Amino acid sequence: MQPQRDLRGLWLLLLSLFLVLFEVSRAGRPVVSCPAACLCASNILSCSKQQLPNVPHSLPSYTALLDLSHNNLSRLRAEWTPTRLTHLHSLLLSHNHLNFISSEAFSPVPNLRYLDLSSNQLHTLDEFLFSELQALEVLLLYNNHIVEVDRSAFDDMAQLQKLYLSQNQISRFPLELVKEGAKLPKLMLLDLSSNKLKSLPLPDLQRLPAWIKNGLYLHNNPLQCDCELYQLFSHWQYRQLSSVMDFQEDLYCVSSKKLHNVFHLSFLNCSEYKERAWEAHLGETLTIKCDTKHQGMTKVWVTPSNERVLEEVANGTVRVSKDGSLVFQQVQVEDGGVYTCYATGEAFNETLSVELKVYNFTLHGHHDTLNTAYTTLVGCILSVVLVLIYLYLTPCRCWCRGVEKPSSHQGDSLSSSMLSTTPNHDPMAGGDKDDGFDRRVAFLEPTGPGQGQNGKLKPGNTLPVPEATGKGQRRMSDPESVSSVFSDTPIVV
Amino acid sequence: MQPQRDLRGLWLLLLSLFLVLFEVSRAGRPVVSCPAACLCASNILSCSKQQLPNVPHSLPSYTALLDLSHNNLSRLRAEWTPTRLTHLHSLLLSHNHLNFISSEAFSPVPNLRYLDLSSNQLHTLDEFLFSELQALEVLLLYNNHIVEVDRSAFDDMAQLQKLYLSQNQISRFPLELVKEGAKLPKLMLLDLSSNKLKSLPLPDLQRLPAWIKNGLYLHNNPLQCDCELYQLFSHWQYRQLSSVMDFQEDLYCVSSKKLHNVFHLSFLNCSEYKERAWEAHLGETLTIKCDTKHQGMTKVWVTPSNERVLEEVANGTVRVSKDGSLVFQQVQVEDGGVYTCYATGEAFNETLSVELKVYNFTLHGHHDTLNTAYTTLVGCILSVVLVLIYLYLTPCRCWCRGVEKPSSHQGDSLSSSMLSTTPNHDPMAGGDKDDGFDRRVAFLEPTGPGQGQNGKLKPGNTLPVPEATGKGQRRMSDPESVSSVFSDTPIVV
Repeated sequence: MQPQRDLRGLWLLLLSLFLVLFEVSRAGRPVVSCPAACLCASNILSCSKQQLPNVPHSLPSYTALLDLSHNNLSRLRAEWTPTRLTHLHSLLLSHNHLNFISSEAFSPVPNLRYLDLSSNQLHTLDEFLFSELQALEVLLLYNNHIVEVDRSAFDDMAQLQKLYLSQNQISRFPLELVKEGAKLPKLMLLDLSSNKLKSLPLPDLQRLPAWIKNGLYLHNNPLQCDCELYQLFSHWQYRQLSSVMDFQEDLYCVSSKKLHNVFHLSFLNCSEYKERAWEAHLGETLTIKCDTKHQGMTKVWVTPSNERVLEEVANGTVRVSKDGSLVFQQVQVEDGGVYTCYATGEAFNETLSVELKVYNFTLHGHHDTLNTAYTTLVGCILSVVLVLIYLYLTPCRCWCRGVEKPSSHQGDSLSSSMLSTTPNHDPMAGGDKDDGFDRRVAFLEPTGPGQGQNGKLKPGNTLPVPEATGKGQRRMSDPESVSSVFSDTPIVV
Repeated sequence: MQPQRDLRGLWLLLLSLFLVLFEVSRAGRPVVSCPAACLCASNILSCSKQQLPNVPHSLPSYTALLDLSHNNLSRLRAEWTPTRLTHLHSLLLSHNHLNFISSEAFSPVPNLRYLDLSSNQLHTLDEFLFSELQALEVLLLYNNHIVEVDRSAFDDMAQLQKLYLSQNQISRFPLELVKEGAKLPKLMLLDLSSNKLKSLPLPDLQRLPAWIKNGLYLHNNPLQCDCELYQLFSHWQYRQLSSVMDFQEDLYCVSSKKLHNVFHLSFLNCSEYKERAWEAHLGETLTIKCDTKHQGMTKVWVTPSNERVLEEVANGTVRVSKDGSLVFQQVQVEDGGVYTCYATGEAFNETLSVELKVYNFTLHGHHDTLNTAYTTLVGCILSVVLVLIYLYLTPCRCWCRGVEKPSSHQGDSLSSSMLSTTPNHDPMAGGDKDDGFDRRVAFLEPTGPGQGQNGKLKPGNTLPVPEATGKGQRRMSDPESVSSVFSDTPIVV
């Protein structure tokens, strides 16, 4: 019997060798077999509710949708599929016991667009966990045990539009996901409802565009009650954003360990929310965004006088920019009023009204007013000082000149010197080479002989008697003479 | 105790009235409550595997995805949801016991894009059942008991792209779904695998564009083995179409109650499949489609001499039309060769080569040759007859004219009368008012005097002697004289 057994062993060895070789020869062809636990309809593999402890081995490479929901999977290892599933666009792993996902688990499925990991037992999201899913559009992570969202877990997911993180244990608001110019440029739905959020970055949230706020679900969180929170959600309510309108009853906050609806915070005496108008000052450049609830809408602006605003500046100073914003180059008082933006989308139209108030002064108006008053005052004081100098501090050298031919424009020169401190440049004053100052000094001295600077007597001073000329006459009763008001200048007849 | 009971009844009545009034007062607001059996994550309602015998009542109007899979639903009535779910885009009803769907069941969900009815017990699809789902893109009906597809069940589904009918009892191929200009203009995947199809409309299928054939799954059907079937799938295999490449092993046919793989039909002695070249005849107009596996690709054609074909006709006769086809206005022999179409899509590129053979004759070439020969023959016979008439049947009235001045162009006139039967209109023949016929008669009569019509002698007739003129001379040896070949016209010296 011994030789017979040896022969049988040899036969079995040869047979297994043959089978291995046969498998190798088949390797070039696609593996087309439908896994035993699955129902296969061309490129769909439905393996749900089969109590599978692991992902079936050797999945067909053409698989487009793989449903593994309602099974007993607990770990998604890097080598969960030996074949690269480049056609897979939907992977359903909900209702399993997943508590571990390898950071390389999604390398074999680079074209995934829909990933359902909801109702599992995930605790953490490792950094760069989903970074290879650059085509992913929808990620379902609700009903897990996620405590924290790693800041880089969702890096490089340029196509992600919807992220459901509801019903987890998240206590920090992941602002990095929604901030403008952020990692997820297409994200329009972030569900953070039913988590453990206590505080929100309110000013940052208020600044977000409406199309993000519209899909930012924050209900059923133990938020802290305050008036800022009330103002935030009141604004969202005014804008009829879905995230607030659909869950008004579930928007709670906590105060003194009691739950309150955020719209019923009478005990806080918050000022009632009122939509504010845009305010601008004369001549300012102003950009008003058409802040729609959806992205990529076609926007048309209409002025208060029901005229359509064009992209090119026509008569007015207002135009519509390429992104649909209203741009005022130099805002005018008459630009004020209610502007309306009509936005049209594929399945949704929206009308937005914006009130613009324009103040009738520039933004630096007060400073200007003060400056004018100040300079006027300074000018006035200077004038008085100069008049006093005129009256009492005439330079002594004038007396030495003796009697000279008087200027024919003495009166005019005098009046201008009082209103402004600049020398008289009246071209009519020309004719002789004597300057006006000397001449004025000769006429304005009303004091008695011998009185010099500061009222002191100066020896050798004599009062010159001016020659009367027909051209230079000034009548005493001339009411238009400004100089007569400020000075006692004797009338030369 | 009786009065107490009455009081309790009154209280209950009042309480219920109050509750009804309270409900009415709430009616204006959206119903936001999450049904007890469901898990709600903002706009997703997951109610799967809850042993639900009916759809939960009062679903929130904002619901976008409703998962009711793995339940005990057996009927989907018209009033399954009292609220209109205009936001619902995905409805999952797989793994239930559905055997009836009301023809109005989908009225409340007009914006549905994804409907999963797989793994149920549906037997028939009533006419216009899905007609209200004008936004539906994917319809999953695999693993049901569907025996027949009603010809109008899928009417007006302009957006339907993928229809899975695998694993049913369908025995008639629903050609109306895929035919060009059909009801489903965007359908690019029709899964009819694992059904009871015995025969296929082979010529119609061969004519379909490649982007439909690429997603037309027909494996695991009891098709009848024949060479036409082999040729059809061999062509699909040559074109590397997914529907054949991914399921080569599962493409069976039945012959003598035995299953055979369609590519191994040696017992039928079918001629081996060979891709045929395009054939054209000289001067024909020809359009060659760039028959890609995907829709909406950008197509570039390159000539056999590696030059890009432009949309506008430049030097050659070939151009590319707006739909990416190659168009020859008048095909020439030198146009023959292998043309290559480079098609680029969003996620897929394709290269297609087409060989063009041009025959060196027109399609009606043989007929033309015959016609020319025929007309030449007829013309020749006519000429001979006319010459004979000339010679022997000259009209008798010519004899009565007597001797007249002969025409200076007699020879030319004669030759033209033989090549064409039209009268001579040579302007050079003018000068005298006599017509050419009379003149020719005067010169051509070689017979003796007295011989009249039909060779009979006519009394009073005399042979006129023509006057020789310098202008009208014709030398006997003139080789260019055409008339000398066909007639015995005497040369006038």
